[in-house]
Amino acid sequence: MDVQELKPFVIGLDLGGTNSVFGIVDQRGQVLATNTIKTQTYTTVEDFVSAGVEALKPIVAKVGGIGQIKAMGIGAPNGNFYKGTIEFAPNLSWGHEGTVPLAAMFEKHLKIPVGLTNDANAAAIGEMQYGVARGMKNFIMITLGTGVGSGIVINGQVVYGCDGFAGELGHSIFFRGGEGRLCGCGRKGCIETYCSATGVARTAREFLKNSDEVSLLREIKVEDITSLDVSIAAGQGDKLAKRVFDFTGDILGQACADFAAFSSPEAFVFFGGLTKAGDLLMKPLKKSYDAHVLRIFKDKAKFLVSSLDDASAAVLGASAIGWEL
Amino acid sequence: MDVQELKPFVIGLDLGGTNSVFGIVDQRGQVLATNTIKTQTYTTVEDFVSAGVEALKPIVAKVGGIGQIKAMGIGAPNGNFYKGTIEFAPNLSWGHEGTVPLAAMFEKHLKIPVGLTNDANAAAIGEMQYGVARGMKNFIMITLGTGVGSGIVINGQVVYGCDGFAGELGHSIFFRGGEGRLCGCGRKGCIETYCSATGVARTAREFLKNSDEVSLLREIKVEDITSLDVSIAAGQGDKLAKRVFDFTGDILGQACADFAAFSSPEAFVFFGGLTKAGDLLMKPLKKSYDAHVLRIFKDKAKFLVSSLDDASAAVLGASAIGWEL
Repeated sequence: MDVQELKPFVIGLDLGGTNSVFGIVDQRGQVLATNTIKTQTYTTVEDFVSAGVEALKPIVAKVGGIGQIKAMGIGAPNGNFYKGTIEFAPNLSWGHEGTVPLAAMFEKHLKIPVGLTNDANAAAIGEMQYGVARGMKNFIMITLGTGVGSGIVINGQVVYGCDGFAGELGHSIFFRGGEGRLCGCGRKGCIETYCSATGVARTAREFLKNSDEVSLLREIKVEDITSLDVSIAAGQGDKLAKRVFDFTGDILGQACADFAAFSSPEAFVFFGGLTKAGDLLMKPLKKSYDAHVLRIFKDKAKFLVSSLDDASAAVLGASAIGWEL
Repeated sequence: MDVQELKPFVIGLDLGGTNSVFGIVDQRGQVLATNTIKTQTYTTVEDFVSAGVEALKPIVAKVGGIGQIKAMGIGAPNGNFYKGTIEFAPNLSWGHEGTVPLAAMFEKHLKIPVGLTNDANAAAIGEMQYGVARGMKNFIMITLGTGVGSGIVINGQVVYGCDGFAGELGHSIFFRGGEGRLCGCGRKGCIETYCSATGVARTAREFLKNSDEVSLLREIKVEDITSLDVSIAAGQGDKLAKRVFDFTGDILGQACADFAAFSSPEAFVFFGGLTKAGDLLMKPLKKSYDAHVLRIFKDKAKFLVSSLDDASAAVLGASAIGWEL
């Protein structure tokens, strides 16, 4: 028996733009202890890693020390699985320029193997190991948060591509010819600019500006409107707010129809803040998909919402990388 | 040693809308003998298979009889790898309704294992084993013929998806909102309607109709114009014909930029009649890709044209399935 197999825990790090959550996870996917630090308090990656190592000490001690830990997995924006690096992450104060060798830095401090991938891939792995995608070999995870991320699984494996960066479906172009909304990536018309939480708020502002229709959303200062406001208003029967979700679902459904032509997945799994809108989003999404998908793919893919709670899914997904090292 | 390993040959069948080419292939990828029958002469699939078995007899005899043949691989339109069937193939007189269990039918007659996949997947396998994609684990094969087909390879495996039909990139939607050209699939705006040989001829007709510009193409009856005519005219410096290829390459380049966001391939490999246009197509294609691809993927994917000759590539690709059975 390999000595490694005796170590019953892994560390998962969900590295987000605001919080970095460290968790200790056992083989059944139980998150036994967590600790959180603020990602952006630190101006250099060295300071961030030092703070992370400190934050790990009490939770590692709880399970009997570092000798009990097999490995660490990190889910991070613009994470490169092949290299263990974060590259040009626009939302990280210490990671937006050049390449940060984060996995190697934690490895040096902790003296255990450390793997890293982007947050959406980590979520897909978590969903495959512990969530609604258990047993699936082909599915597409789409995260609807501040941006639109994706983790693609084909033949039971996450798709990393030639460089470790495959699966940027949020940056598929929806509106061509420079007619679409300006995206953070510098191009126009990306799906992310319409189907993220930010995109939904943007659509609501446009709809309010372009009509005089009464709406509960007019009670909110226009620049403060969030996707949650739109969701609440739609839930209360607000017609304009409902149309915002119809519009969003229509675009996402058409986009998914194209993704089906690529990998013909068994399911699309949605995750993130926007999925809280429930049927407000999922119904128009499914309707649009059915209307636009190529005949041969009709009625094949399931449309699922993640069953893992937001807090633990990302940590679980990140930790799952640890088991594979 | 497995007895199977003693059998040094496989049969490859390239089943096209016009011709069905049977070939005997050795382990080095040499096509030792071929025989061709007309695909559409037969009104039932039983007649087609009987004719195929007859056509195989002389070429199988040349290599020492069926005892020398390990297996047979078939590349066919709408081929389903998982089931060995052809399903709803619009261009086959005996295959456009329902499901035809072609692999099982040949197996019954020949008493050797028979595998089947769609023609573009077969071409991708051929390219990976014998062509410009040798050694590549991640690439996208795009066939530019009467239609636009694709075979996607990820982690060294062809992507079949949950149902065996993945990789229909020709039916990605390019122009949204019902503004695009009507496609054979019943929808509007598919890439196939612009970037196939047929699409190029269609573009030329539109350009001729919408202007009074002088062009060599005006010497041809407008409904008889083919992509080859456009290619020849462009090669002679015809400006309108050149613009047809600029337009085609621009669309295909933008489409490939989206495909890169999916699987980040090491290369795009192009195959089929339209690639004979050479730089007329490839230059605007590459230029458009560079202008539209997400920053993180810039300058990563190679743009290659198949090195296998048209006649043998499809048979080789089909035969390669035989080795894997």
